[in-house]
Amino acid sequence: MAKRTRFKDADCPVARALEAVGERWSLLIVRDAFDGVRRFSEFQQSLGISRGILATRLRRLVALGILQPSPASGIAYQEYTLTEKGRALFPVVVGLRQWGEDHCFAPGELHSELVDARTGQTVGRLRVRSKAGRALTDADTTVKKVARS
Amino acid sequence: MAKRTRFKDADCPVARALEAVGERWSLLIVRDAFDGVRRFSEFQQSLGISRGILATRLRRLVALGILQPSPASGIAYQEYTLTEKGRALFPVVVGLRQWGEDHCFAPGELHSELVDARTGQTVGRLRVRSKAGRALTDADTTVKKVARS
Repeated sequence: MAKRTRFKDADCPVARALEAVGERWSLLIVRDAFDGVRRFSEFQQSLGISRGILATRLRRLVALGILQPSPASGIAYQEYTLTEKGRALFPVVVGLRQWGEDHCFAPGELHSELVDARTGQTVGRLRVRSKAGRALTDADTTVKKVARS
Repeated sequence: MAKRTRFKDADCPVARALEAVGERWSLLIVRDAFDGVRRFSEFQQSLGISRGILATRLRRLVALGILQPSPASGIAYQEYTLTEKGRALFPVVVGLRQWGEDHCFAPGELHSELVDARTGQTVGRLRVRSKAGRALTDADTTVKKVARS
């Protein structure tokens, strides 16, 4: 992304997105929700954080429309599931995963890997592409200001 | 990502990635670096954060190998540029941008948009795909544990 006009941060979708989910616990809660975690106690066990911090983060993700609380059928626990807005974070979580795989593990070190459930193959590399499908690096892109339609 | 085995967080590339960059300021610094920001004073002006917080975040990003400091030719200022590891965060920043565009602006509200510099067209939507190019939702994927080659 070269030679671009600078904008106020409020105009930048990256800044707004990070206001919502730019915090480690929030994105790890979203990751866990993608992995099928539903209950408070399951999130707490997975993340190893205090009940207070978890409760605050869950409330915030619900208020932002990223998670929806629902009473689980037949049991006393409330469950949290991703809304459509929450599920739209899938490429972000996959992007973080692939970057982590490449840059945050020593050779031979065990890590989890995301695979296509149908074939068992590792998912493809996320690539930024033009509308026509041409792969774009940051140097091939620039930023302009538009009104949302 | 359904029906998967749960792992310790240390095995999860998402968790490791967020340990490195899962903090709003760090990812906004990386975004600014993609946008051509180089100098301490420029980052400070763009982000509107204190010198102390910015200095801490820049030091950490340098220590992690995401930014590299270099003396600017002929001037007194040090400049910071993205390493290859840093540039590999491009799909993550684009993913956050597209999610922000879709979910963090009211209709008609101005925001910046990432375009293909060659055509001026908005870049394509980031999609998670199989190695063969089939679009995958989170429900089409699962996680397994592997050793890094």
